[in-house]
Amino acid sequence: MVKKVDYAVGVDLGGTNIATGIVNSAGKVILREKAPTLAGLGHKEVLKNICNIILSLLSKAEPQVRKRIIGIGIGAPGLVDHKTGIIREPPNLPGMNGINLKKYIENRFKKKTFIANDANAYAVGEHTFGAGRGTKNMVCITLGTGLGGGIIIGGKLYVGSFQTAGELGHIVIRKEGRPCLCGNTGCVETYVGANNIAERVRKEIKHGKRSIILELVGGDLSLITPLILLQAAKLNDKYARSVWNEIGKDVGTVLVNIANTVGPEMIVVGGGVSKAGEYLFKPMLKEFNKREFKYIRNKIKIVQGELLDDAGVLGASSLVWNHV
Amino acid sequence: MVKKVDYAVGVDLGGTNIATGIVNSAGKVILREKAPTLAGLGHKEVLKNICNIILSLLSKAEPQVRKRIIGIGIGAPGLVDHKTGIIREPPNLPGMNGINLKKYIENRFKKKTFIANDANAYAVGEHTFGAGRGTKNMVCITLGTGLGGGIIIGGKLYVGSFQTAGELGHIVIRKEGRPCLCGNTGCVETYVGANNIAERVRKEIKHGKRSIILELVGGDLSLITPLILLQAAKLNDKYARSVWNEIGKDVGTVLVNIANTVGPEMIVVGGGVSKAGEYLFKPMLKEFNKREFKYIRNKIKIVQGELLDDAGVLGASSLVWNHV
Repeated sequence: MVKKVDYAVGVDLGGTNIATGIVNSAGKVILREKAPTLAGLGHKEVLKNICNIILSLLSKAEPQVRKRIIGIGIGAPGLVDHKTGIIREPPNLPGMNGINLKKYIENRFKKKTFIANDANAYAVGEHTFGAGRGTKNMVCITLGTGLGGGIIIGGKLYVGSFQTAGELGHIVIRKEGRPCLCGNTGCVETYVGANNIAERVRKEIKHGKRSIILELVGGDLSLITPLILLQAAKLNDKYARSVWNEIGKDVGTVLVNIANTVGPEMIVVGGGVSKAGEYLFKPMLKEFNKREFKYIRNKIKIVQGELLDDAGVLGASSLVWNHV
Repeated sequence: MVKKVDYAVGVDLGGTNIATGIVNSAGKVILREKAPTLAGLGHKEVLKNICNIILSLLSKAEPQVRKRIIGIGIGAPGLVDHKTGIIREPPNLPGMNGINLKKYIENRFKKKTFIANDANAYAVGEHTFGAGRGTKNMVCITLGTGLGGGIIIGGKLYVGSFQTAGELGHIVIRKEGRPCLCGNTGCVETYVGANNIAERVRKEIKHGKRSIILELVGGDLSLITPLILLQAAKLNDKYARSVWNEIGKDVGTVLVNIANTVGPEMIVVGGGVSKAGEYLFKPMLKEFNKREFKYIRNKIKIVQGELLDDAGVLGASSLVWNHV
């Protein structure tokens, strides 16, 4: 006898690509589709693209799978009102500001649709399918272009009174520090966001820092990314290691702020930049332990995210399971 | 016909004094008793003092009040486990470390007893009887010797997975900043805690800052307190105003960190130092508005606490109502 399995569609709406997948209730992605967002063409084009890619995905699914799709989950950038479904101020998709994506998709596909900020969706994903399974209070941070956050309280996504809780990238760690795009200064994101890391390394190498990075990018500083910085660190590059060390310390400091506020049983660290593994985690945990109350640091688990390349799709689909 | 009213005993256990009161369900303190804690004599003496003062309080109550006391609430310093009732690492009451105060009082008085960290109790007090009445998600900070915090989520005190949530005084706002007694550096408390304020002013005046403060304390720098600093500001003292300005900005910055994490509908600012009123609130709100997302700053209410001199007793008693 085969156990009956339900499915959900996960849609990860990014500024560059739309990634989608059909996910089963065990958290396995059984089909994937990806297409460019084409954000520059305006919101109507983006909406059409989203629909087309979902249609293409569904057309490839076997009929018995298609029949058992119980809902669609969407992770989207910006301040996302998960009740009404409206997206506000998405940094890389300005044309989608004010659009009710939930309603649009629900009308188009006649399926229950759930939407959340992408970092919030990721947190629900790690809680449903990943490192945070079974936890009651948990915080996720995603280290990517920026630093995103999601908070689970009592086993459910917590969004606060105005759907804005978990804007953890904009926690100030240096009051007199770098200006942030959000208007604030010293936000942790200005130190550990992928673009900021690349920018910083670019500047320092330009100003004479000696590093193998220059070779790795064939002299073209515009090619510098956190991945290149990781490659250099793995090649024992002193400068690259010192940069990861500082990034780790800054992330460790914001984890202290998060832990002292939310007091969760677990903090999950995920996102592209977290692929640096030990180069990031070692200084991060050292700094956390140095700064945190002994009683707390001995209790809170800080772990790497378990959802890897499918994180966006899994997180989005998990919104469906989280609401069932 | 008179409406039946219930009563609770509130006990505010401090490092210096024990304040107690009988509070009715409308949040009115109908009887008060206060006595020194005598912390230096050890935990047995402290426990005896607490019992004696409660006994004295009860003996003064009319029989029909005594009959209707439905419980005892205690606010205590340190990491307080409100489930087991054990107090851990209370900074000003080291002898009480590990003591199960809830059980002790419950056994002694045969009344349901509730205990919480004092700043947490204060938050429940503001939520039950004060500025936060009717809010769903709310954060309280108390500006006193340190900066204490309490978080209300879904109308209930939120203590996190290890009863440590809301340690808001130890949110880092300057990563490379002042060392804090907790072992961390740059905690907001090191800038805005009453002792730290006094210490800073003392130093700066010693090093030649010109201020009316020197006159106000008759040349005795050890007499400097935030209250003296407030007096000076009211007398138009330029230096005193600049210090309040900086304190306000630092508090405003930590409010941004709190708002971006918890996203509550209200933040209540209370405690002795908050009596500075406009001298504190004006720069605090200005800094908050400068640093916070527009969408968020237009929604979150930031207000002064309403529980004044009875705050400790009211907060403690509110633990009883919060659990009923």
